[in-house]
Amino acid sequence: MSSWYTDKDNRNFSVLSTRIRLARNLGGMPFPYKMTDADREELKTKVKNAVKNSNSPLISTLKYIDMADVPDTKIKAMVERHVISPEFATFKNSAIILSEDESISIMVGEEDHIRIQVVLAGLQLENAYEIAEQVDRLLNDSLEFAYDSELGFLTECPTNLGTGLRASVMMHLPLLESTRKLNSLCENIAKIGFTVRGIYGEGSKSSASLYQISNQITLGISEKNAIDNLTLIATQLTEKEIQTEDEIDRISLEDKIFRALGILQNCRILTSAEMMNLLSLINLGLRMGIIKEDYEPVRLLIDAKPYMLMDKYGDLTPDERDVKRAEYVREHLKPTM
Amino acid sequence: MSSWYTDKDNRNFSVLSTRIRLARNLGGMPFPYKMTDADREELKTKVKNAVKNSNSPLISTLKYIDMADVPDTKIKAMVERHVISPEFATFKNSAIILSEDESISIMVGEEDHIRIQVVLAGLQLENAYEIAEQVDRLLNDSLEFAYDSELGFLTECPTNLGTGLRASVMMHLPLLESTRKLNSLCENIAKIGFTVRGIYGEGSKSSASLYQISNQITLGISEKNAIDNLTLIATQLTEKEIQTEDEIDRISLEDKIFRALGILQNCRILTSAEMMNLLSLINLGLRMGIIKEDYEPVRLLIDAKPYMLMDKYGDLTPDERDVKRAEYVREHLKPTM
Repeated sequence: MSSWYTDKDNRNFSVLSTRIRLARNLGGMPFPYKMTDADREELKTKVKNAVKNSNSPLISTLKYIDMADVPDTKIKAMVERHVISPEFATFKNSAIILSEDESISIMVGEEDHIRIQVVLAGLQLENAYEIAEQVDRLLNDSLEFAYDSELGFLTECPTNLGTGLRASVMMHLPLLESTRKLNSLCENIAKIGFTVRGIYGEGSKSSASLYQISNQITLGISEKNAIDNLTLIATQLTEKEIQTEDEIDRISLEDKIFRALGILQNCRILTSAEMMNLLSLINLGLRMGIIKEDYEPVRLLIDAKPYMLMDKYGDLTPDERDVKRAEYVREHLKPTM
Repeated sequence: MSSWYTDKDNRNFSVLSTRIRLARNLGGMPFPYKMTDADREELKTKVKNAVKNSNSPLISTLKYIDMADVPDTKIKAMVERHVISPEFATFKNSAIILSEDESISIMVGEEDHIRIQVVLAGLQLENAYEIAEQVDRLLNDSLEFAYDSELGFLTECPTNLGTGLRASVMMHLPLLESTRKLNSLCENIAKIGFTVRGIYGEGSKSSASLYQISNQITLGISEKNAIDNLTLIATQLTEKEIQTEDEIDRISLEDKIFRALGILQNCRILTSAEMMNLLSLINLGLRMGIIKEDYEPVRLLIDAKPYMLMDKYGDLTPDERDVKRAEYVREHLKPTM
């Protein structure tokens, strides 16, 4: 039962994770932003029952969580491990229905009534879509999704109309970034209807050379098409990232990578931003075979984020957190195998 | 047979080394700056014979080296390990007479005809003076030193007149430096006739928080007095350095110290300046007991200097040297016992 960031079997140093999200709305109910509190309660009950009463263990085993019952730290920790979007955390009267490994989640009462999300490690768009589609079909057995034969699935925001699908991959592209090749590549990617963003979605900045690439278009394009194209983009970017190795000063890069390792394994104070940048170098070092031992930088990158730490160790001031993070990283950045 | 920087028995993390230097000139011979080549040859032969023909193994075992026979790299490496002064390296037609561990050296044809130097690890001014005095007496048996009953030993530069003694200690004072207490302490030290300089003597800058403290006055003050006062100054500075621990942010310092260790043990490129600053932190960490394993930072600081490296590995460009230095440091910065 591994989450995307702990699943070593499907680990990919360039495509860290795959995400499929389907936006769905129930017929005969106002869109969330127009809902009354009573409407929201009704929506949650309907979805909760649809899941609970399903004959399929795929969704009947999911755990229903009313977000009102989740402490703020835990909500923010969920954002940090990409279970929910930062926006979802701000919605009132919402709920989430989660698989134990958090790979499947159904967000209830976000921008749309329902958002089905599947997150997996590595490049697994087809697998993830297959799971999401099954969940979609199972929910549709008891819930009636708003669907128009011309427009497809109806969504609150027109950018989701049609398939309601958002397929995305989180990629680590440090060499394309440092050699400034990424900008022109992003322009080309945009031309074919995909967009490149920071790791926490729209409006977020890139850090640690992490980029989220997703389809922009949901209308007039099939799910298969979107997924195939994104798989191709991710594969090509991976290749280009690898090709860029020939253009960099190897010894300088090795120096940076091993210094990062030395600092992470020895520091006593570590901010989240510095940790991300250093772990980014470790990930690159592993991908390039510069680091020979095996480490799990992405796991650590998630596990030592501010709210993830406070979820484990209780409230901490920022200074205390940086000390605790250094301790946590020293303890966990050890060769595995 | 340990040099000052490899002698663990007398190691002192605050007073890294002790140096005694006696300036002597032969009667009936012009001062070096007025000497002809023939004079210089005569001087070298006289001193060489005085040493060789001595009945005392203390000086008869010393090795005579004509500096003209020493390759440039080896000369600069001698400067780096403080066997000779940077100025001595520039004199033509000079010679050095050295003990195997390089603790005793007799420089011939520097600013004065003869400079007897004794360098020991830690704070050992009395010991070092005793050895220098013996060498002085033994040489005087066959060489006639220019001496005036009022002025004492005659020297080329009036600042050495009298005892001809320069007693100095090399101290590591990182906390007094970082808390800016050292400046006012230096002013007080100057008032009692001592001076604080960078580690390569007059005009050199301090780096890695290393300071050389020596007597300024040689006339009208006994050797014992100079040595006792310097011992007192070194002891007091050590105490003040230790007291300053209470004023610093411990966790920040620990962070800096352990990062230094992590970088030194992992880097692939290391300049001499960065190495010195990082080893300075290791030395402080050892003194304060923050680092529990035992390392020899001062030994490494000397052994990995540019010419010391080239003396071991042959000519290297500055870039190659920084890579070799990183390799050397990684290999040698391991806990010892």
